[in-house]
Amino acid sequence: MNTLGHNLTLTTFGESHGPAIGGVLDGFPAGITVDTDYIALQMQRRRPGQSTVTTGRQEKDQVEFLSGLLDGVSTGAPIAFIIRNQDQHSSDYDELKDLFRPSHADYAWEQRYGIRDWRGGGRSSARVTAPVCVAGALARLAMRKLLPALDITAFTSQIGPYSTNPANDMDYTTVMAESNIVRCPDAELASKMEEYIKQLRTEQDSTGGCVTCVVRGVPAGIGNPVFDKLEASLAKAMLGINAAKGFEYGDGFAVASQRGSEHNDSFCLENGQIATKTNHSGGIQGGISNGQPIRFRVAFKPTPTIGREQQTVTRDGRETTITAKGRHDPCVVPRAVPVVEALTALVLLDQYISSK
Amino acid sequence: MNTLGHNLTLTTFGESHGPAIGGVLDGFPAGITVDTDYIALQMQRRRPGQSTVTTGRQEKDQVEFLSGLLDGVSTGAPIAFIIRNQDQHSSDYDELKDLFRPSHADYAWEQRYGIRDWRGGGRSSARVTAPVCVAGALARLAMRKLLPALDITAFTSQIGPYSTNPANDMDYTTVMAESNIVRCPDAELASKMEEYIKQLRTEQDSTGGCVTCVVRGVPAGIGNPVFDKLEASLAKAMLGINAAKGFEYGDGFAVASQRGSEHNDSFCLENGQIATKTNHSGGIQGGISNGQPIRFRVAFKPTPTIGREQQTVTRDGRETTITAKGRHDPCVVPRAVPVVEALTALVLLDQYISSK
Amino acid sequence: MNTLGHNLTLTTFGESHGPAIGGVLDGFPAGITVDTDYIALQMQRRRPGQSTVTTGRQEKDQVEFLSGLLDGVSTGAPIAFIIRNQDQHSSDYDELKDLFRPSHADYAWEQRYGIRDWRGGGRSSARVTAPVCVAGALARLAMRKLLPALDITAFTSQIGPYSTNPANDMDYTTVMAESNIVRCPDAELASKMEEYIKQLRTEQDSTGGCVTCVVRGVPAGIGNPVFDKLEASLAKAMLGINAAKGFEYGDGFAVASQRGSEHNDSFCLENGQIATKTNHSGGIQGGISNGQPIRFRVAFKPTPTIGREQQTVTRDGRETTITAKGRHDPCVVPRAVPVVEALTALVLLDQYISSK
Amino acid sequence: MNTLGHNLTLTTFGESHGPAIGGVLDGFPAGITVDTDYIALQMQRRRPGQSTVTTGRQEKDQVEFLSGLLDGVSTGAPIAFIIRNQDQHSSDYDELKDLFRPSHADYAWEQRYGIRDWRGGGRSSARVTAPVCVAGALARLAMRKLLPALDITAFTSQIGPYSTNPANDMDYTTVMAESNIVRCPDAELASKMEEYIKQLRTEQDSTGGCVTCVVRGVPAGIGNPVFDKLEASLAKAMLGINAAKGFEYGDGFAVASQRGSEHNDSFCLENGQIATKTNHSGGIQGGISNGQPIRFRVAFKPTPTIGREQQTVTRDGRETTITAKGRHDPCVVPRAVPVVEALTALVLLDQYISSK
Repeated sequence: MNTLGHNLTLTTFGESHGPAIGGVLDGFPAGITVDTDYIALQMQRRRPGQSTVTTGRQEKDQVEFLSGLLDGVSTGAPIAFIIRNQDQHSSDYDELKDLFRPSHADYAWEQRYGIRDWRGGGRSSARVTAPVCVAGALARLAMRKLLPALDITAFTSQIGPYSTNPANDMDYTTVMAESNIVRCPDAELASKMEEYIKQLRTEQDSTGGCVTCVVRGVPAGIGNPVFDKLEASLAKAMLGINAAKGFEYGDGFAVASQRGSEHNDSFCLENGQIATKTNHSGGIQGGISNGQPIRFRVAFKPTPTIGREQQTVTRDGRETTITAKGRHDPCVVPRAVPVVEALTALVLLDQYISSK
Repeated sequence: MNTLGHNLTLTTFGESHGPAIGGVLDGFPAGITVDTDYIALQMQRRRPGQSTVTTGRQEKDQVEFLSGLLDGVSTGAPIAFIIRNQDQHSSDYDELKDLFRPSHADYAWEQRYGIRDWRGGGRSSARVTAPVCVAGALARLAMRKLLPALDITAFTSQIGPYSTNPANDMDYTTVMAESNIVRCPDAELASKMEEYIKQLRTEQDSTGGCVTCVVRGVPAGIGNPVFDKLEASLAKAMLGINAAKGFEYGDGFAVASQRGSEHNDSFCLENGQIATKTNHSGGIQGGISNGQPIRFRVAFKPTPTIGREQQTVTRDGRETTITAKGRHDPCVVPRAVPVVEALTALVLLDQYISSK
Repeated sequence: MNTLGHNLTLTTFGESHGPAIGGVLDGFPAGITVDTDYIALQMQRRRPGQSTVTTGRQEKDQVEFLSGLLDGVSTGAPIAFIIRNQDQHSSDYDELKDLFRPSHADYAWEQRYGIRDWRGGGRSSARVTAPVCVAGALARLAMRKLLPALDITAFTSQIGPYSTNPANDMDYTTVMAESNIVRCPDAELASKMEEYIKQLRTEQDSTGGCVTCVVRGVPAGIGNPVFDKLEASLAKAMLGINAAKGFEYGDGFAVASQRGSEHNDSFCLENGQIATKTNHSGGIQGGISNGQPIRFRVAFKPTPTIGREQQTVTRDGRETTITAKGRHDPCVVPRAVPVVEALTALVLLDQYISSK
Repeated sequence: MNTLGHNLTLTTFGESHGPAIGGVLDGFPAGITVDTDYIALQMQRRRPGQSTVTTGRQEKDQVEFLSGLLDGVSTGAPIAFIIRNQDQHSSDYDELKDLFRPSHADYAWEQRYGIRDWRGGGRSSARVTAPVCVAGALARLAMRKLLPALDITAFTSQIGPYSTNPANDMDYTTVMAESNIVRCPDAELASKMEEYIKQLRTEQDSTGGCVTCVVRGVPAGIGNPVFDKLEASLAKAMLGINAAKGFEYGDGFAVASQRGSEHNDSFCLENGQIATKTNHSGGIQGGISNGQPIRFRVAFKPTPTIGREQQTVTRDGRETTITAKGRHDPCVVPRAVPVVEALTALVLLDQYISSK
C-alpha cells in the first residue's frame, strides 16, 4: 500500500506522467512553522538535471501545499501537497506500451495489477520519491523544535569501483557532500566518480552505488520492538526506495566475520553520561536507540535504462530487443541521497512520537 | 509494537524467564489441516542444545494450541499458542539487575521503558523467536495448499572467515543444510565452521555470520508498492530478528560496483512462459515478485555474551567489569536459519493474501 | 487520524477555507472504468445551495483527479483527487478567531491541538465530507463490476417532529428520495419537512433528523469479527460524519423492549436458497452479512450555527454572546444522505475485499 | 480481525469450547502495578451463574498472566493472559452441528469461513468478551495513575418495558448499579426487571435491553478526527459486543426532534474554567472530548437462544425446527455492563495515548 508510518503517516500518490504527484502527511505535530524556503531547497537537492552527470529531465518540482497550515503554521490537520508534472512527453514512451524493459518493474507490475501505466514507469518511477522529500523536509522542520540536536547527514559512499572508507563516516558533513555533483564528501573520490559516470554515459552504460547515512543527536530510548524495531523500520523505508537492494547498519555485513570481543561496544562514562567506547552497533541495540550516532548504508543497483541493445519480450510473448533512446542518468545514487535523508527523518519522527 | 503483518498478523508475547512465550496468528486461512508433527519438527530445528557447538540450555518448546482449530482444522478464528518456559533459573541473572551488558539491549531498553526485565534479557532475548517459528510453520502448512510449488530453503552461508560461494546458492537444499550442526550445505565448509566455533568457545569468544534464503515457486505478481514492497516487508521482518545487522536481496551490496549491462536481467521465453535469463534481481522487480526465485541474505552479529571480561557501567553510573558465567553459544547463526524461513513464510503468505 | 479502512483506505485532507480539500483512495481495484459523469452527479447531490431550504454557499465542487488512472481506467495505484475551495471569504469568520461557538468543535479542537483553524470550522467543517463522496462514488463504480446486484439507498427518515414509518423502509427508492429537496421518499412528509425548515429559518433556529440506509444485494459472508464486524465498521464510519449522534441497525434501539420470540429471524428456504422470514437483524448476524438487506439509521443533531444570540466565552476566558450572521442551513440531514451512501459503499467494498 | 486499538492494542483469541480464551494487550504503559485482586473482581462481575436471573453456566474465569510483568509491574512488553475453559460439554452441542440457530451467527459465519466451530457458538460466543474485561481492568489500573480523576460507570438502563429516566443518568453510581442482580441503579425498577426476567424464563423467552455509560473526569482534548473521532472509536468498540444493535451518545437519537436553540450547549465559566451549562453533546464535540462527562447508551437484542420451538434450516438445505434445551439466560444486558466499561476504558486509554 502507499502509506508509511504509524503515528506519523505519509500517504503518497502519483505517476511519472500523470497530472501530479504528491502526498498527505498525517499526525504531524501542531504548531510547527513551515519554512517553505527550506522545503524548496530540499526539493532542489532531489532535482535531476543539475549537471552533466545526471539526467536531462528538467523538473521544476514546485510544491503546492493544500491543507493543514494556517498562516504557515501546522494545525495538526493532515498536510497535503502536490507537485504538478510539467514535463510529460508521454508519447516518448509509446514503444514501451507493448514490451517489458529488462530489470524494470514493467512485467511484475502487470502481473500484479493486470494493467500497467507504461508512461515513464508510471507509479514505479523514481519520480514517486519527490513527495517523500517534501514530507521529509517537513519532518526535519518539526525536529528542529522537538529534537534540536538532531542532525541527519547522508552522502554517496560508493559509485562503481570507488568507495569511501567507512572509518571516515563520522568526519563527513553535508557541506562536504553537497560540494560536488556526485555528493561524495571525499573530493578526490568525487572527481573519480564523476569521470566514471561520464565514461559510462559514453559507453551507454550505468553503475550502482551506495549511500551512507549518519544521524547524530538521537536520544536513547527510541524504537518499538519486537517488530517495529528502529532498524527494522529504517530497513523497510530504505528498501522501499527505487533500485535499493540492501540495507545494513552499524558494522553491517562486516559483522559476519567479526568476533564478539572485537564487535562489542563497552559502556563507559562520558562527562557523567553513559556512553559506549566504540559504535559497532550503529547507535541501535535491541531495536532501540542507545544515544550513540546511528549509521547505516543502502545499496542501489545500476539504472536499468541503458542505451545498449538488450533482449526482452513483448506483452504478447515474442522475443525482441530494446535500445533506450534519449539521454539517461547512468547513476541514481546522488539523487538518492536526499531521499535517504527524508525517509530517515520520517522514520525517526514517527518512532519518536510512538516511543513517548 | 509486537504485531507483524497486514492481513495475516502475528502478535507475539513473552519473555525469556516469564511463565510462557507465545503468539496469536490472525487472518490465517480457514480449512487448513494443522499437522502438529510438522510444527514440532520445525520447533526442534530452532531448539538450542542439540550439540557441542550450540548453547547448553535445554528447551523443550512444547507448543500448546489454545484456539482457532476444530478437530485440527483451522476455522478462520485467531490461532493462539503458547510454549511454557521450563528452564527459568532467573536467579542466575541476579547480578545483571544493576548493570548493562555490552552490546545487549539492556541499556536502550531501560531508556525506552524506564524499567527492564533483566532475567535473561527478558523480552529482548532470542527466545522470542520461538513463537515466530510456530507461526511460520503454520504459514508453510497453508502454502502447501495455496501455493504447492513454493519452497523456502535457508542455510548458513557464512560464519566468521568461512563463506559459501553465492554462485552456488541455487544448488543447495534443506537436506544438505540440515545434515550438519551449523546448517551449512557445503559439508567441507561446515566442518571448518564447526571447528571455528569450538575454538571460539575455548577462547571465550563468539562469531557473527550470514544466513542465505532461496524461495522457489513464488508466482509473479506478489507485492504491494510503494511502501509495502515485497523486499521492504522482508527487510523489516529480517531486521527484526535478534542480532540481525543487514539485509540484501538479489546481488545485494555487490550491485554497487556492477554496471547496468552486467546487472540487467534480460527477459526471454522459457517453455512459452516469460522468464529472465539471469536473476541478479533476486526475483523481485519494482517491489513485486517476477516469478524467478527470490534470494536474499541476512547478516548476524557475534553473540554479545562472551566469557571474557568486558568494561561496562552500572545503572547508578559507576564503571565496572562483567564476565559472563556459564556456557554460552558462540554463534547464533545456525539457530537463525529456521527463524529466517519462518518469517519468509509469514511475509510471503501475508503479501500473497494482500495481492489477490 | 485521517485514514479510513483496511485494504481499501481513504485518506482525506483539507479545511473549509484552505486552498483545497481532497483525498487519496488506495487499494482500489485495477481495471475499473471511472465514469466522471457519475462522480460529478454524486458530488452535485452533496452540494449545498440548491434551494431555499439549504445553505446559501455556492460550492462548485469540481473534482480533479491527479493519479491512479490511465485513460480513465484505474491502475491499482492510489487515486488522488482534489476539489479547490472557490468561495473562501475567510474574513467573514474573523470574529470567531477569539471565541468558541457553542456546540461546535472550536473549544475541543483547540484543547487537542493548541491551535485552531477558525476559518469556517477549518478541518471540523462539514466540507470535509466532500472527498468522502468522491471516494464513495468510486467505490460504487467498482461494485457495479464486482457486486452488480448491490444497491445502496439512503434517505431522510426524520426531520424534527416528522418521521417516516420504519415499516416502509424497504419500499423507498432513490428516485422517491431525490424527488424533493429534503430527500424524504414520502412526498407528503417531505412537504411538511420543507415547511418546517422554512419556519425554522424565519425563527433563526435549526433542527436535527435521521438518515436511514438500506443496502440490497450484499452477499452473505462479509465481515471480520470480532473487532471489525460489519456493523462495527459501519458504526465507526457513520459516527465520523459531522453532527452524527447515533447509529442503529436492524431494529436498533427498539430491540431493547422486544422479546426473543418476536425478534428472532427464522431461517427458511426461498427458491432453494437459505433466507430469513423476517429481517429484524438488519442483514448482519455475528458481525457478518447474512444475505438479507442491510438496514441502519443515523441520527444527526441540529445545526449548531443559529441566528439567535447565544452565551459563550472567549479564548481568554471572558463570558460573551454570539449571534451568527448571514444565512445558515437549519438542517444538514438532506446533505448527509449522499455522505451516508458514500461511507456505506466504502465500508462494504473494504470489507468485501477483506473477506475474500 | 481480532485486534482493537491503535497505540494500545488488544488482540483476543479463543472459542467458547476450545482449550482457553485470552488476549494480548500491547502498548500498555510500563511501570503500572497490576492489582490482581482488582482484576479478579472485575472478572467476577462479568461471570454468569450468579443468581436465578442469569445463565446456569458456572465459569470460574481464573486469569493467568503469561508475560509483560516483572514482580507484578508492567514492563512495556505485551501482557498476555489466558482463561482456561473449564466447562466444555461440547457434546451438548452436537445437534447444532448441522443446522443454523435463528438469529445466531451460525449461518453468516459459515458463509464467511466455509467452516464453523459449532460448539457453543465457537468464536461468536459471548464468552469472547471475558478477555476484553481483563484488558479493560488493566486499562483502568493504568488510568488510576495517568488520569486519577477518571470514573467509568455503566449500568442497565432498560430491560424490556422498564427503563430508567435519562435525566437521572448523572445521579447513578456503580454501588447503586451493583446492589442488585440486574445492575439497574434504580432499586424499584430493578425489582420489576428481575420479575420480568423470571417470568420470561418461565415463558421460555428472552428480552433485550440497554446499557448506559457515564464517564467523568475525561480531560478536554482527547480524540483523533476526522476518522478516529472519540465517538467513532467508542461506537466501533460497542457495536463489536455480541448482540449490540445500537449506539448513541449525548442526547442520541432524541436530537432528531430537537432544535438548535434547545440542543446547543452554551459555554460558561465555572470556577474560572471553561465549561458548558448543559451537556446535550455528551462530552464530545467535533470528535474530541470537551471536558464534560461523556455519556452514551448501547442497545442489546434479546438472547437468541430460547426454549420455544423455532423454524430453521439444516446445513444441507432442509427446513426443520429447533428448541433449545437446558437453561438459558433470558437477558444478557446485566452481563454486558462490565464489558461496556472495559471497552470504554480501552478506547479512552488508547485515544489518550494517541492524543498526547
